[in-house]
Amino acid sequence: MHDNRRVVLRRRPRGRPVAEDFALVREAIAGPAEGELLVRNLYCSLDPAMRRWMDETSYAEPIALDSAIRCTGVGRVVGSRHRDFEVGDHLIAMCAVEDYSVVRPGGFTRKIDADHQMSLSRYLSLYGPIGMTAYFSLLECGRPKEGETVLVSGAAGAVGSLVGQIAKIKGCRAVGIAGGAEKCALLINEFGFDAAIDYRGRDLESLIDAIRAACPKGVDIYFDNVGGVILDAALGCINQFARLVECGMISQYNSTTAQPGPSNIWQIIAKAATMQGFLGRHYVDRYPKAMTELRRWSDEGRIHVREHIETGLENFYPAFMRLFDGTNKGKLLLQVDAEMRL
Amino acid sequence: MHDNRRVVLRRRPRGRPVAEDFALVREAIAGPAEGELLVRNLYCSLDPAMRRWMDETSYAEPIALDSAIRCTGVGRVVGSRHRDFEVGDHLIAMCAVEDYSVVRPGGFTRKIDADHQMSLSRYLSLYGPIGMTAYFSLLECGRPKEGETVLVSGAAGAVGSLVGQIAKIKGCRAVGIAGGAEKCALLINEFGFDAAIDYRGRDLESLIDAIRAACPKGVDIYFDNVGGVILDAALGCINQFARLVECGMISQYNSTTAQPGPSNIWQIIAKAATMQGFLGRHYVDRYPKAMTELRRWSDEGRIHVREHIETGLENFYPAFMRLFDGTNKGKLLLQVDAEMRL
Repeated sequence: MHDNRRVVLRRRPRGRPVAEDFALVREAIAGPAEGELLVRNLYCSLDPAMRRWMDETSYAEPIALDSAIRCTGVGRVVGSRHRDFEVGDHLIAMCAVEDYSVVRPGGFTRKIDADHQMSLSRYLSLYGPIGMTAYFSLLECGRPKEGETVLVSGAAGAVGSLVGQIAKIKGCRAVGIAGGAEKCALLINEFGFDAAIDYRGRDLESLIDAIRAACPKGVDIYFDNVGGVILDAALGCINQFARLVECGMISQYNSTTAQPGPSNIWQIIAKAATMQGFLGRHYVDRYPKAMTELRRWSDEGRIHVREHIETGLENFYPAFMRLFDGTNKGKLLLQVDAEMRL
Repeated sequence: MHDNRRVVLRRRPRGRPVAEDFALVREAIAGPAEGELLVRNLYCSLDPAMRRWMDETSYAEPIALDSAIRCTGVGRVVGSRHRDFEVGDHLIAMCAVEDYSVVRPGGFTRKIDADHQMSLSRYLSLYGPIGMTAYFSLLECGRPKEGETVLVSGAAGAVGSLVGQIAKIKGCRAVGIAGGAEKCALLINEFGFDAAIDYRGRDLESLIDAIRAACPKGVDIYFDNVGGVILDAALGCINQFARLVECGMISQYNSTTAQPGPSNIWQIIAKAATMQGFLGRHYVDRYPKAMTELRRWSDEGRIHVREHIETGLENFYPAFMRLFDGTNKGKLLLQVDAEMRL
């Protein structure tokens, strides 16, 4: 066996991460303890939430200094001390940005079928936590009803693009907000949104104007991936009994100072609206049902997924930063090795 | 019959209302049309929401210029063209700050028993929209569970003092925030809160420290009457699955410029919390049940109400402004005349 190449957190980023916050190190491969697995990672999911985990004050357990960057991943079992998994099984699990992770099954860990015609990466872009987040946050927190208008920020992103498509399946008008003309075209042409708003160069008032134009009947559900001024503008356009699903606030993640919240927060009262924060881990028990429905929709051609795959652990830093520059074109994944042995 | 003295809205206040925004005028008494009543007003409820109704952009229908200031009131029917009401009946209704109002029954309008030993003013301080707001907003939006901690801002106010007492009845720890040592003493000694925090002179960090000290197990329900920095501080102290009940944001009502929202809004996601705006009008159908329960609690001595009664239509302006100066000591009411003929 080889060494384990690991991308570790050298120091906690101050604001926008820099390359020196991370290091690629080589260590001996650890052995799994009783109840654990040793997994050869194949794909790492790169998600905005990981930025939060790098902070001391993370909502989830912070990534420890000098340990590998935690992520959702797909891999192959190469050592097992757990009765439910055998060497050669493929699985999706919480692992890390490294060649080999020791995994203690739990949460959303489960075996996947590598022989299925579907690519393994699909388990990260649709059938894993990303898909589950889109599914449960929209349906459970948003509670869309036919004919309602669903406004989605970060709409070209992994979660947002799914949310828009599920909204359409539920008979809603889906309006997406994204950065740049190219992404806006993608929203309409590939993901089937009814309208798209390019937020670039717009201030609060201009955003409100654009939302009102794209949502002539107002906003019944605002699905938030970004926070900041876009959340503020959305609050200015909500209908009575609107639901605001707070799934992410990527615009704030690299801030080094406290950012003002939305000036239109009063609208929560004026419209008797509900704003609900979503954490996927509270829905893990119900993943299988959602998986079945997502697979059906995908098989029927009603859900399209776009993946943006970067390759090589050594490219972790520039790949990860695409999330914050908005230069990823689809669900961002890191293939651990150029040559992947299933 | 006399003239009708009316406190009318002369112009829309810019920020903090000034006396010249209002005028006391005398007009002929209007007659009720078919389906309407003419009501001799006895008590007017003065509430923070009225400030919002004075704005062009009110969430509810704005008070029209040169018409009397809309309010909840208790009065006596002196003319009836509605089959359910007779001359001499007493009622609670949406009326206005004036001697006589034409009322079209609907919403929460209903007859009250003037012969009951209870004072008529009690219908405004406990058995009217104020009590209903406290009851439904805490129980339906807050969903308190025994042993949880309920933090209340504006806790010495009409709604806040009831919310704290209902929280205690439900087996919660009730912590109140109010301005000044005298009000804080009132929270503990008269309304039975477990702890009180004087917000005066505290910034965000100091408020957070005070809340943490008073809520050692964190905040499960934050009941908000004030918005602004206190909401921001509360967000910094919430527990997983916290509920934030947004009932009012009085700290913002006299702002002439957009105020920044809470910088800790991210905690909505980090704690999978829910923030819900409350408008009492959505619960009108269920008022009777709540009334019964509030009366029982009051009869059992478990709910105490404090009223602050000012007298005379001519005193509307200084009386109303007590809400914003915090100089009212209990539910603020305006007795229309010094001599009240039941």
